[in-house]
Amino acid sequence: MASTSTPMLSKDDGPLAALRRFTFTTLLNEDTQTRTITLLGTYTRSPTEEGDSDDVPAILKLERQNFSHDSLPSFVNSLDKAKSLITNDVYHLFLAWSGKGEDVPADLKITLIQPATEVEIRKASKQTYKMVRETPELYQSVVLPYLQSFPPGRLSWVYNILEHKKESENIVYEDPDPNTGFIILPDLKWDQLNMSMLYLQCIVHNRNIRCLRDLTPSHLPMLKNIRKNAEAAAMKKYGVTKGDLRMFVHYQPSFYHFHVHIVNVSCHGYAGSTIGQAHLLDSIIDNLELEEADGLQSGRASYYARRTLTYGLGGQHGLYKQLWQATQTA
Amino acid sequence: MASTSTPMLSKDDGPLAALRRFTFTTLLNEDTQTRTITLLGTYTRSPTEEGDSDDVPAILKLERQNFSHDSLPSFVNSLDKAKSLITNDVYHLFLAWSGKGEDVPADLKITLIQPATEVEIRKASKQTYKMVRETPELYQSVVLPYLQSFPPGRLSWVYNILEHKKESENIVYEDPDPNTGFIILPDLKWDQLNMSMLYLQCIVHNRNIRCLRDLTPSHLPMLKNIRKNAEAAAMKKYGVTKGDLRMFVHYQPSFYHFHVHIVNVSCHGYAGSTIGQAHLLDSIIDNLELEEADGLQSGRASYYARRTLTYGLGGQHGLYKQLWQATQTA
Repeated sequence: MASTSTPMLSKDDGPLAALRRFTFTTLLNEDTQTRTITLLGTYTRSPTEEGDSDDVPAILKLERQNFSHDSLPSFVNSLDKAKSLITNDVYHLFLAWSGKGEDVPADLKITLIQPATEVEIRKASKQTYKMVRETPELYQSVVLPYLQSFPPGRLSWVYNILEHKKESENIVYEDPDPNTGFIILPDLKWDQLNMSMLYLQCIVHNRNIRCLRDLTPSHLPMLKNIRKNAEAAAMKKYGVTKGDLRMFVHYQPSFYHFHVHIVNVSCHGYAGSTIGQAHLLDSIIDNLELEEADGLQSGRASYYARRTLTYGLGGQHGLYKQLWQATQTA
Repeated sequence: MASTSTPMLSKDDGPLAALRRFTFTTLLNEDTQTRTITLLGTYTRSPTEEGDSDDVPAILKLERQNFSHDSLPSFVNSLDKAKSLITNDVYHLFLAWSGKGEDVPADLKITLIQPATEVEIRKASKQTYKMVRETPELYQSVVLPYLQSFPPGRLSWVYNILEHKKESENIVYEDPDPNTGFIILPDLKWDQLNMSMLYLQCIVHNRNIRCLRDLTPSHLPMLKNIRKNAEAAAMKKYGVTKGDLRMFVHYQPSFYHFHVHIVNVSCHGYAGSTIGQAHLLDSIIDNLELEEADGLQSGRASYYARRTLTYGLGGQHGLYKQLWQATQTA
């Protein structure tokens, strides 16, 4: 009796043998953010004293553990195998195997940045976030001078891509039109294997749009071209279907050349898609269309130049000090 | 010359050897949610033809890969070692090693539920999301009839809270004003211990606002009251400081009585804060203020009644079928 009401692991089983009584049937769910996967299967319960043995439905949830601090100093030496995925300038992306590299898929993704500048080290460090409120006036007085202070070479890696000098082998789709065209490539954050984590970057050919603030109804043809043809390209290349993609723009962006992030809609795992930092491409198009429908009022700035934009800003960001000070005193 | 301007991996290096040129210095960051860790170290660049070899600062970011679908059928058999952590009724928790189990920490956590009921299987299953585009016309023809079809009792749990009939012991703060007032309570998703995951709900006393679509500049006093005093209340009760909170509204919401989600700004882990489903309280206030500044045009609907709202909608949602059909044929 007890054996049917209290399903038990056999006394003889070690934990490993107990787990091996699970037989996989189908994938129930996966959470790409937490690297968790949930399987449905059957579990063969061990024979009772009466000799019964039966298969029951079972759920098996697998989660990757975080890295242990002790293992860090020797981590790269403990790797069994690695494969280079992307190399562009200082950025190097690898897949790696922590063990048994011959017959199993890579269990690690590794990004190497070398040499790493002060700015990159600060960006990669743990930081406190604060919500800052950037008024149009603060954009003019703080943000614009900040982004104008960058040396011209700062965007050369972007221009290398646009000019096919780098990563041309990674181009998923290109529309070469200088005003409405763009290039789509896989994002470094994506391993290019797991479709539920699909992450693409769409970099526009127009070099005059620094960020969201610069957009006006005149950019609607470009924005609608991205919405339509980026989806079409991803459908063709990766087999996603209509409505599977969430497209958004960052503010502040990590570089000041207009680009659109394209992510699987079911993937909520990327911090960059959080409200505040992210602006949906569809909402941008809709706001600019409303503006256009209302008719341009002479001398009035465009919608995104008039907005007060609120977003979480990391304490290490070059704009943090001034914007946070202004937010506190407002 | 080229060796200093274009840092390269040596031609002779395989990817593994390239990675092993990294020497660990310190831990920069770790994200326990995504199982990602970022290390600072030095990278020994390979000698150039001139014989130069040097150490440069480098960042190494390690991420656990998600599970590959191919490996699932044989997954439990590929494990090297397991350890039982908890066994409670049908729930069994293990730590496991995918390889080299002798001297490294467990890299997997495994939960086994057996036998699994129908309800548990449905709960563990994945929902498909699609991006739907809800025009003002679709709101009128599909969404409004849907939310008007709910029996009046559907919101009684909310009114019980507002009337102090339920959960009054959980109230963090109340402003009793019937037009601009609200009640703040901890959200069920929050354990009320871990401040970095802080999650509060702000439920307004005004019973006439069903959702974002109903907001007009007339609600600005209420919205600004929430922005100011919800933060003040959380600062007093939980010791958070100014700028620590991200406040947003869901569309579609899970219930049609206006409420605001209040989350720690540093917590990117809640799926509900994703762009599309979420609208920042600050942006709502700013859009309504812009509308007010422009002056009301007679007969024109308010900003949120005019917007086409795009968001990810789960396949199990009551609106999914009609909205997805309309999006596809648009």
